[in-house]
Amino acid sequence: MEEYMKRALELAKLGEGRVNPNPLVGAVIVKDGRIIGEGYHKAFGGPHAEVNAFSNALEDVTGAHMYVTLEPCSHYGKTPPCAKAIVEKRIKKVTIAMKDPNPMVSGNGIDILRKNGIEVEVGVMEEEAKALNEIFIKYITTKLPFCILKTASTLDGKISTFSGDSKWITGEKSREYVHQIRNKISSIMVGIETVIKDNPSLTTRIKDKKGRNPIRIIIDSKGRIPLDAKLLYEEGSTIIVTTQKASDEKLIKLKELGVEIIKTPLRNERVDLNYLMKELGERKIDSILLEGGGTLSYSALKEGIVDKVMTFIAPKIIGGRDSKTPVEGDGIEFMKDAINLKNIEVQRFDEDILIQGYLK
Amino acid sequence: MEEYMKRALELAKLGEGRVNPNPLVGAVIVKDGRIIGEGYHKAFGGPHAEVNAFSNALEDVTGAHMYVTLEPCSHYGKTPPCAKAIVEKRIKKVTIAMKDPNPMVSGNGIDILRKNGIEVEVGVMEEEAKALNEIFIKYITTKLPFCILKTASTLDGKISTFSGDSKWITGEKSREYVHQIRNKISSIMVGIETVIKDNPSLTTRIKDKKGRNPIRIIIDSKGRIPLDAKLLYEEGSTIIVTTQKASDEKLIKLKELGVEIIKTPLRNERVDLNYLMKELGERKIDSILLEGGGTLSYSALKEGIVDKVMTFIAPKIIGGRDSKTPVEGDGIEFMKDAINLKNIEVQRFDEDILIQGYLK
Repeated sequence: MEEYMKRALELAKLGEGRVNPNPLVGAVIVKDGRIIGEGYHKAFGGPHAEVNAFSNALEDVTGAHMYVTLEPCSHYGKTPPCAKAIVEKRIKKVTIAMKDPNPMVSGNGIDILRKNGIEVEVGVMEEEAKALNEIFIKYITTKLPFCILKTASTLDGKISTFSGDSKWITGEKSREYVHQIRNKISSIMVGIETVIKDNPSLTTRIKDKKGRNPIRIIIDSKGRIPLDAKLLYEEGSTIIVTTQKASDEKLIKLKELGVEIIKTPLRNERVDLNYLMKELGERKIDSILLEGGGTLSYSALKEGIVDKVMTFIAPKIIGGRDSKTPVEGDGIEFMKDAINLKNIEVQRFDEDILIQGYLK
Repeated sequence: MEEYMKRALELAKLGEGRVNPNPLVGAVIVKDGRIIGEGYHKAFGGPHAEVNAFSNALEDVTGAHMYVTLEPCSHYGKTPPCAKAIVEKRIKKVTIAMKDPNPMVSGNGIDILRKNGIEVEVGVMEEEAKALNEIFIKYITTKLPFCILKTASTLDGKISTFSGDSKWITGEKSREYVHQIRNKISSIMVGIETVIKDNPSLTTRIKDKKGRNPIRIIIDSKGRIPLDAKLLYEEGSTIIVTTQKASDEKLIKLKELGVEIIKTPLRNERVDLNYLMKELGERKIDSILLEGGGTLSYSALKEGIVDKVMTFIAPKIIGGRDSKTPVEGDGIEFMKDAINLKNIEVQRFDEDILIQGYLK
């Protein structure tokens, strides 16, 4: 029944921002047409959704039907394998939204269940489950972070007026939504130009609720970040990504402020973004919200590190041949070579329009 | 009944591109719960919708109920007043979507009907009727053309790559839709830069159907248009709008090609667009599709001649700090002074997104 899987997906979502780089998982136990237990993966390293559902069950689960958004695990990790727990609890049938995307273990959990006589159904609301765990799927299969390029521009494609004013392009609802994303994602990345020009905090600000700040990643090839930049003094951690072009003296001062430094080889006289992605993946950073500016955004697209694009468009016009646009750099020469997005979705936030798509 | 008014609005639409600067009007005659006659305003100067509906009626209309999208006229123009015809045909009740927007005659048709004992109901699907006749409403109340600024850009706000390539930004469906608009509108306007760079035909090209070319209006302050520009040799008429900065010699040559010249006073060293609007209004041009480029589009917005903006956005990224954007010029200095659009509507054309709005 889709209705139970839908509930399991809703539960899974409750773990957003708390389980990275683990997957979001929800589970529902159904008996005699009623839900008798619910659970989700709440925090990295904590019990899995299935185990939480068993703990929360109001009555004996023997012979019940379990709905779970991801294939139950088969290995001993931080917790014992859920497939085994399901067998022990004498569940009769398990409906799974999607198989484990990790090629090393995919299908193993299902095998255990089937070998123990449990009926298994796979693929109910699979698309929704895959969308929910797009970050996990990328990270577990590549060990690289899932990168979302987020831009916000006027209807005529500007991110600031010719004088540099950008407060505000989008409305309150759009900006709130961005903070919700910051609250879910492992890290937020900007170029040094943005830091110098806007002096942003890069924190998560959510109404009536304490946000969790993502790790701040600043791409700063030459180590130009001002030592009084606001973000250096905000709660949470900051990584400055630089190259041999930065002075050691500056980097030492930054370290004294508690900042982590990642030095990458030079690529086109700048930070090597692909090298950086591997470094971040090793640090278990499974996701990045790339928030500009135009030079870094273009490099990121060209170097192929972007997975998803989110573009907010405000129905305003400011004009200006010298006003900045969301993606700059040298640019692509011919329309036929344009970077095309797929699976386009359009959403409204009051007057603003959010266009989302994936790299082809 | 909304269903009959909906039909009348559908009929009205059939006159698109053929009645300018008259309104689009549809009429339906209902008797005993059946439609017994339908008509619409087919061509400028031709019989009105009501008269056509009477002509097409399959049976005696005495005592019938008429649905008409616009208040029946009360004056002798190119045709006798429809209100009088309705009285003579002994219609029992008339439902009207919207009053005549022309302040000189608004309400007069309704008065005639009521004085003759006909029941009149006003305001059924009024919003739809007003949207359908947005061009007519502006023109009849101001004698100025309704101006639609149309742009097409990539997701990152570019109208061409840094090298000038713009074929194609949007997909086939979007481009087809633009040609449908060209087929309905009185005129199409572009700046001289667009003519020099792209050498466009500015004709209406519709699949399997002969299009009607709108009047081509070229804003060319200095008379720089090449004498071999394609559009000068296309079917239909062309107006070159220029100033004292153009050489008489060039203008004479253009006239020899059958082009009309409008000279305006200088405003900021360019064509005075507000002066031009009055000139075009006097020529019974009720509508303009402004198709670029960025300099003219900015001037048009700043001078306040734009009524509506249609922005096609293709889910592609090309980047480029030097790539052209849809609205350029000097630009607005502060976000708080941005030109805001209202009544935003979003539509999909395959992968492309059309965002439409009105000037506040």
